[in-house]
Amino acid sequence: MTPSPTVDLNCDMGESFGAWTLGNDAALMPYLTSANIACGFHAGDPAVMRQTVCLALQHNIAIGVHPGLPDLAGFGRRNMDISADEAFEMVVYQLGALGAVARAEGGVLHHVKPHGALYNMAATNAALAQAIAEAVYKVQPELVLYGLAGSELTKAGEKIGLRTAHEVFADRTYQANGTLTPRRQPDALITSADAAIAQVLRMVQGGWVRTQQGQEIAIKADTICLHGDGAHALEFAQQLSQALREAGVKLARPAAAK
Amino acid sequence: MTPSPTVDLNCDMGESFGAWTLGNDAALMPYLTSANIACGFHAGDPAVMRQTVCLALQHNIAIGVHPGLPDLAGFGRRNMDISADEAFEMVVYQLGALGAVARAEGGVLHHVKPHGALYNMAATNAALAQAIAEAVYKVQPELVLYGLAGSELTKAGEKIGLRTAHEVFADRTYQANGTLTPRRQPDALITSADAAIAQVLRMVQGGWVRTQQGQEIAIKADTICLHGDGAHALEFAQQLSQALREAGVKLARPAAAK
Amino acid sequence: MTPSPTVDLNCDMGESFGAWTLGNDAALMPYLTSANIACGFHAGDPAVMRQTVCLALQHNIAIGVHPGLPDLAGFGRRNMDISADEAFEMVVYQLGALGAVARAEGGVLHHVKPHGALYNMAATNAALAQAIAEAVYKVQPELVLYGLAGSELTKAGEKIGLRTAHEVFADRTYQANGTLTPRRQPDALITSADAAIAQVLRMVQGGWVRTQQGQEIAIKADTICLHGDGAHALEFAQQLSQALREAGVKLARPAAAK
Amino acid sequence: MTPSPTVDLNCDMGESFGAWTLGNDAALMPYLTSANIACGFHAGDPAVMRQTVCLALQHNIAIGVHPGLPDLAGFGRRNMDISADEAFEMVVYQLGALGAVARAEGGVLHHVKPHGALYNMAATNAALAQAIAEAVYKVQPELVLYGLAGSELTKAGEKIGLRTAHEVFADRTYQANGTLTPRRQPDALITSADAAIAQVLRMVQGGWVRTQQGQEIAIKADTICLHGDGAHALEFAQQLSQALREAGVKLARPAAAK
Repeated sequence: MTPSPTVDLNCDMGESFGAWTLGNDAALMPYLTSANIACGFHAGDPAVMRQTVCLALQHNIAIGVHPGLPDLAGFGRRNMDISADEAFEMVVYQLGALGAVARAEGGVLHHVKPHGALYNMAATNAALAQAIAEAVYKVQPELVLYGLAGSELTKAGEKIGLRTAHEVFADRTYQANGTLTPRRQPDALITSADAAIAQVLRMVQGGWVRTQQGQEIAIKADTICLHGDGAHALEFAQQLSQALREAGVKLARPAAAK
Repeated sequence: MTPSPTVDLNCDMGESFGAWTLGNDAALMPYLTSANIACGFHAGDPAVMRQTVCLALQHNIAIGVHPGLPDLAGFGRRNMDISADEAFEMVVYQLGALGAVARAEGGVLHHVKPHGALYNMAATNAALAQAIAEAVYKVQPELVLYGLAGSELTKAGEKIGLRTAHEVFADRTYQANGTLTPRRQPDALITSADAAIAQVLRMVQGGWVRTQQGQEIAIKADTICLHGDGAHALEFAQQLSQALREAGVKLARPAAAK
Repeated sequence: MTPSPTVDLNCDMGESFGAWTLGNDAALMPYLTSANIACGFHAGDPAVMRQTVCLALQHNIAIGVHPGLPDLAGFGRRNMDISADEAFEMVVYQLGALGAVARAEGGVLHHVKPHGALYNMAATNAALAQAIAEAVYKVQPELVLYGLAGSELTKAGEKIGLRTAHEVFADRTYQANGTLTPRRQPDALITSADAAIAQVLRMVQGGWVRTQQGQEIAIKADTICLHGDGAHALEFAQQLSQALREAGVKLARPAAAK
Repeated sequence: MTPSPTVDLNCDMGESFGAWTLGNDAALMPYLTSANIACGFHAGDPAVMRQTVCLALQHNIAIGVHPGLPDLAGFGRRNMDISADEAFEMVVYQLGALGAVARAEGGVLHHVKPHGALYNMAATNAALAQAIAEAVYKVQPELVLYGLAGSELTKAGEKIGLRTAHEVFADRTYQANGTLTPRRQPDALITSADAAIAQVLRMVQGGWVRTQQGQEIAIKADTICLHGDGAHALEFAQQLSQALREAGVKLARPAAAK
């Protein structure tokens, strides 16, 4: 008998900055098993990081580093032509900063998931992916590296000896080669909650996804990315979390290395 | 017989940023026993931090965190009305960032010395001093806290249980209450290298300093602050280092806690 | 017969930044006669400035420069120990930036009102006040300088030859010397909308205010500062605007110089 | 008889920031006819801008806006995936900021030359080029737009009705299509001062350049870009300036529109 599958529900958190509030962290955390916490480059500041770490500890969810590009005005969403060395250095820096915040509050880090443009660039650029994996490995090799399922980033993590978590998206459609349909295309998003939940269940329980072109392709789904913004974010998190549990899927953070 | 005294020679390092170079780190390091490395708030960036850590490891000098105010344009020299919580959070953040950079290069942190306005405010503001000491204690209690000799900062460090290093200045004159003569006063600086060296020897070997008003007051001198800028910085570092050794003073970093 | 008095209703606007939204500018503008638009130092960015200028033009309200300290993380609310030269330079810079944004959209600047800590420091620090007045005077001497009623800033503006607008607060209590009761004191705020409106009418129509100590002191009220945040900001703006009109007070921006 | 040609010698200036000094502006200015002054995004700050404007006024050289990407750590040299709207807005902002600094010192703006990655992207990306041209046109249509000779940027400027200056490089080699040989190629740079001067004379007097492939192609040379950094920058500026004058070439800024 196959053991019931396990999956992680992660969401970007701690994206407020100074006087500005973003997201609804406290309300969402009950439905999550891990949080990706911004580290001051694209969002977050030392005070916000501390509050978010405390919230994650209260909800007993995994604390993850969410390093971004140094582009506060662009929220880390604009591709920047950085070198592999720069990627290495900015991940090391942000990882250490959040690690100290966690330690000061009695917590420990669990994973690293790059943000926005850094995530996207690392999905396809092998040199950046390797630099990021190396940054994590050299500072805390026990951390789990989260990356787009089947991407250069998870490959680089596995090659260097990190545990990785392949990430899938509930509300995005997939292409034949396993990549996400670009957001600018009209059919990039799954707007029906039921369809999104069905896609997640297929990925988690069946290990496959139906592409926009109609094929069924294999996909590894260790962790599901939830979005914290949007009018229905909270409602969808509740629905998805309940649907997974009802289907016998265990919700838990991926195991870190010893 | 009294054992020969030991003193630490520290200097601010890693104060370049992006395309801008400041200081002469590689040339000065042979004369130092510890380096205070900027962490990106008042100076330094992840790449500069990495290079500076590597240099310190090559020269086998202690790697110290040099946290500053978030004021790149003002080089962290302008007092800012920050809260104790903000001081705590910015020290935790910067400590963690440099700690990770050091770890990635195979090094470990040794001490924390606040920079510029943060150092000065913490010398007299007990609430800020306590917040900084707490930040260090909660993240890495084995680190040594450097502060102005006899200041609120060293007091706060000792109270919380940190090892501290009382810092003295070779080229600054002292007031009757043990504080430095403010820079805006005409007699704030000792411009003669010989007089500066003589003052250091009195402080390190005798445990006292002659104030601008002529008294001899007790002072604890665990570490001497050298300045990395100025035309004669390198020459003075050589002279002072040689004079101390010739006087039988051992140059070494303060012992960290176990 | 005394002509009916005129007063300006101003509010800080354009305080969003990048992905972060703050305030409710579009809803408030119908009740205002002038807007103080953040210029990128404490809040605002070039895109937000442009949108806010466009909104102000649509509502036909005066476009004001709202220069702040270079402290995005602190929203320009933390006092910084800047020099008079630095104050001059940062006001010139921000004034020019917003001026160009306005010009590109077919608008012109009307006034300058410093933000937060810069406003507060300029109210009592004559050197900073003079530097700010000089900055405005040297770049666009036709602009109106807004400052706390009876403060060093309005004095400096008048001395150099600028038109000034003395600013009063609806919801703050006053001290015998004409200053605002500091926010940390329990009676600093007027929480009843009716009391706040009554205070405004006395200041605008009578030229006096009752202090916390019970005296009636003279006050000049050219412009009233509304707050854009808070649950009741919009409602209070409506009430105050209506009460003033019903009392025969004309709402209009202060005349700029020719 | 052909009138003797005229050419402009421009150089990037005001690239210091806070405590960091870069370049050798005062020494170079005697050999220049125009200065491109950084505006705080990639380099420069309000104080540096003011000093540089004052220097330019003393040397009677044209004051140009040198807008860059918001990337201080990368000195504006890293391509960023900005939108055309963002390009428009950041040029308007920086143009206004420098314009006010100039006005406060009694100067006027003469031209706009984008910096680094913004310059390079605008040379080939027509949408960015148009946005930049529009920004200049909407704020100060009398300004001259400097861009790579024959690029999308000069095209966009001419199309919208701006005066443009086609820029050539003394020390860079050219490709058959008129573009610069990319820096990463071994033959990108002309290291002999004599060869660089000869290339300039051919471009200015003859209107052509010999490409790396050996062809002679037409090129428009309204302004020559000098580099302020490097050991021989000052010496080369002297030599080139002298060579041009000896060859009967008049050195002068391009005429601005009325």
